[in-house]
Amino acid sequence: MYKDFGTVHNACVDGLLTDFYQITMAYAYWKNGKHEQRSVFDAYFRKCPFKGEYCIAGGMNEVVRFLNTFGYSAEQIKYLRTQMPHCDPLFFDYFATVDATDLVVYGMREGEIVFPSQPLLRLEGPLIICQLLETTLLNLLNFPSLITTNAARYRQAATCSRTGEKPILIEMGTRRAQGPDGALSASRYSYLGGFDATSNVKAGHVFGIPIKGTHAHAFVTSFTGLKEITFPENCELGPAFLDEVKAYRKNLGYEHTHDGELAAFISYAAAFPTAMLALVDTYDTLLSGIPNFLCVAMALLDRGFCPVGIRLDSGDLAYLSKEAKRMFARLAESNWTKTPEIKEKVRGFKVCASNDINETTLKSLNEQGHGIDIYGIGTNLVTCQAQPALGMVYKLVELDDKPRMKLSQEITKVSVPSRKTVYRLYNADREPLIDLMQKVTEPKPEVGQRIFCRHLFDETKRCYVTPSYVEELLVKLWDGAACISKEDVCDLAKAREYCSSRLEKFRQDILRPLNPTPYKLAVSNEFFTFFKSLWQEQAPIKELK
Amino acid sequence: MYKDFGTVHNACVDGLLTDFYQITMAYAYWKNGKHEQRSVFDAYFRKCPFKGEYCIAGGMNEVVRFLNTFGYSAEQIKYLRTQMPHCDPLFFDYFATVDATDLVVYGMREGEIVFPSQPLLRLEGPLIICQLLETTLLNLLNFPSLITTNAARYRQAATCSRTGEKPILIEMGTRRAQGPDGALSASRYSYLGGFDATSNVKAGHVFGIPIKGTHAHAFVTSFTGLKEITFPENCELGPAFLDEVKAYRKNLGYEHTHDGELAAFISYAAAFPTAMLALVDTYDTLLSGIPNFLCVAMALLDRGFCPVGIRLDSGDLAYLSKEAKRMFARLAESNWTKTPEIKEKVRGFKVCASNDINETTLKSLNEQGHGIDIYGIGTNLVTCQAQPALGMVYKLVELDDKPRMKLSQEITKVSVPSRKTVYRLYNADREPLIDLMQKVTEPKPEVGQRIFCRHLFDETKRCYVTPSYVEELLVKLWDGAACISKEDVCDLAKAREYCSSRLEKFRQDILRPLNPTPYKLAVSNEFFTFFKSLWQEQAPIKELK
Repeated sequence: MYKDFGTVHNACVDGLLTDFYQITMAYAYWKNGKHEQRSVFDAYFRKCPFKGEYCIAGGMNEVVRFLNTFGYSAEQIKYLRTQMPHCDPLFFDYFATVDATDLVVYGMREGEIVFPSQPLLRLEGPLIICQLLETTLLNLLNFPSLITTNAARYRQAATCSRTGEKPILIEMGTRRAQGPDGALSASRYSYLGGFDATSNVKAGHVFGIPIKGTHAHAFVTSFTGLKEITFPENCELGPAFLDEVKAYRKNLGYEHTHDGELAAFISYAAAFPTAMLALVDTYDTLLSGIPNFLCVAMALLDRGFCPVGIRLDSGDLAYLSKEAKRMFARLAESNWTKTPEIKEKVRGFKVCASNDINETTLKSLNEQGHGIDIYGIGTNLVTCQAQPALGMVYKLVELDDKPRMKLSQEITKVSVPSRKTVYRLYNADREPLIDLMQKVTEPKPEVGQRIFCRHLFDETKRCYVTPSYVEELLVKLWDGAACISKEDVCDLAKAREYCSSRLEKFRQDILRPLNPTPYKLAVSNEFFTFFKSLWQEQAPIKELK
Repeated sequence: MYKDFGTVHNACVDGLLTDFYQITMAYAYWKNGKHEQRSVFDAYFRKCPFKGEYCIAGGMNEVVRFLNTFGYSAEQIKYLRTQMPHCDPLFFDYFATVDATDLVVYGMREGEIVFPSQPLLRLEGPLIICQLLETTLLNLLNFPSLITTNAARYRQAATCSRTGEKPILIEMGTRRAQGPDGALSASRYSYLGGFDATSNVKAGHVFGIPIKGTHAHAFVTSFTGLKEITFPENCELGPAFLDEVKAYRKNLGYEHTHDGELAAFISYAAAFPTAMLALVDTYDTLLSGIPNFLCVAMALLDRGFCPVGIRLDSGDLAYLSKEAKRMFARLAESNWTKTPEIKEKVRGFKVCASNDINETTLKSLNEQGHGIDIYGIGTNLVTCQAQPALGMVYKLVELDDKPRMKLSQEITKVSVPSRKTVYRLYNADREPLIDLMQKVTEPKPEVGQRIFCRHLFDETKRCYVTPSYVEELLVKLWDGAACISKEDVCDLAKAREYCSSRLEKFRQDILRPLNPTPYKLAVSNEFFTFFKSLWQEQAPIKELK
């Protein structure tokens, strides 16, 4: 490790978390004396996920942490020797010295809004080092960027389009995530993308994300009757509390509710009098769960505690949440709530909803109308059910100062050669107009300058842009050692704020979930001409016979 | 740790990798004096993944390893105190003593074929312990079982239905997986489900899975011309080799091919003369890639080395692979291949195919006919694109020897109460007939006995079964300490063999991908009666007004 900067959060991320071909290629480079050629590689994606027109960069922080520890231990090399028995033993001596000190890395900021074909990372360094890093870097970027984007889309879908009201969003996917780290990554990057909290305690501990949780069905079914209530010692609610609840049960006409469930709610309240939130669908939401909650809640209010509300985990969430709110309102209007303060509190009981929620459900709930204040979202968010992988790629674009490209039958799959950077051009309202990609050697676009912008692949698409503000998107992350402060790398809350402030700048039609408008990535005229002539030089012309 | 048994493979798996509500519930149990009640919990799923009719249990090994280390450190408890500031401080003293010594766990064997509603795990122990373990155990089982099943389905789809020929399957998804552990889990459990190898070096190192890999497009584009070839020292192929390749290039009429690509293939051969496999689609597969490979391959054959073949990573894989095989055959029949041995070797060049392959592609390739011998499969396999999560759940089924159940509007979502076990009943050909679930206290079904089997939910479905062989599926994994040997827990290759032998026992119509026949899980008549009466006792009857 180069300095006290921190290691990756997951100990299984190391130089061996890579494809074997990186190591066989490394050997071939070394054997052919090419390993120290100066190379430039770009990491980018070709298509935005989820049929959208934007993506959010995530995982940059882990990239820096990984570079900070990159190298191979004696034990790892011992294993590699067994897998490459015919290779020159001198290679392994060399391999033990491999690290990231001779590397320069530029990248997007954590939480940046990014678009197809623009580099999220640009690496400059010895061919062998850049090559060895490919798989691990893609692994560290692909899922984080995907889940951050997914979370931002869920956030948009959950926001009421009429009132702009934003419900609280809690990520709850640990049990269904793709492995332990899938869970941790999902919690971390859902938060980056705009979620408010997670149920994942480890994510709270490691990343400082707010954690939330109350109880499950098992807690409810662990009680069968009121006799099982044993008001604990040192409890603010004594045995008299049961009588107070029973009185409400009688007065409110709720005597048919499930005794075990009521016992569970009372016992939960005894443990958490200041944070009572009841899961109400174990037996029957409207006939038993909500009535039982209301009896306990009223008794708690009389004691000066303010319950939080209920959680729905099954059934028709739109209908049940509205029905719950109606029941709260009816009680608030009745004579059983005595003071205006209590009426206000009853009216304000929250409804939390969970159960297989995805982007489509959120949109549909908003269209139907509902009474949900808090969403607990798991499976579909954390596994990105709508598209479980982002297809980021990593291509050699320059070697020994000469541009390199990989051709393809499909022009959009051709890699974009040379050392490039990306500028974001803004209008007078500080709204992004277009991103401009060009060689690092071209002059930076100037404010007020009329710039001729070209489409990378389609020569019929052209425009002039006169920016009021210009911003370079790629920042230097690494130059033999980290170039950003440890705080910048580790402060998730700061990155989350940055992400949200960047999203706010973009026009809504670019961000909207359905049929969004594509945001444009342009290239300079100089770059367009260079790219086209290189392609013509490289691509073979078929001879049809 | 109880004994030298091993820890989880991923250091981020510990007691905190759980939902916060497990810990708040733990507090509520403790506060109400319920924490030591003897509980039984089942982990099971309700629906097979991928629209199939079977699933494979994976992750059991990690469950045992996790139990072996379960507990909370002082540092973790310090964090929990900050999150639960109003809780009784005595709780945290107690919490520091929590472990799995008072727990008994039964489970399916790693690689077992399993079906909906039957427990994959049954835990017996103090309520608080079983509750705390829920999320972590589900995380450790859900993705492994899903990916194992996915891999087995890919294996089936890749097997030729006419000839029964089995191609080699290599998992290559590290870069696109859901996080670093998503990648490691995918490599590990794809192998369990029937894959032959992985590209993931770390998975090779940690789990002993065979690793495979050659080179990428970057290696090819790192060369621009033949002048860049620098035959390395100590190389079995000297500069004369270039002339030999050039001679074939001329004689075979391949002089129009890409020089950089040819230089790359020669240099790769110089590093790996005994394992030459060339990626042929960087410029043009048929015009440049395969011709360049053949020139190098012929020269290698003359030197006594046997090249492996080519890899296709884009385009129409069915057409290109058949075309490649035709080119190999034509060359084998020509005068340029001199001996029968060389003709045989040329005819036997392998075609490896990659590029966004999924179960549907495999099926379609088999229908069209193709020339592929080896598949490299990444994204869709490792992220389980067709269904990225398995919905395993974990329910309290017994407390202090009394059955517990959670109701639901949907009868199939009702939890199945009481301590149960599962038997697999076989016919005389050792083909599984039916799985029978009953209380552990009921007598084990006997060979030759005529058993009345009932459907769990549908009373119109009944049958008699007279088994020729009976097998109990749940084995004791843990009884305060591991009950299985460390070898049993860690030997992935053994589990893989077990899995494959278990799959072979089942009728093909149950395993087939499209519209498979459901395999039956039955219950004893005694259990059916018990379940029905408990449901009737618990479920409220609505009063429609």
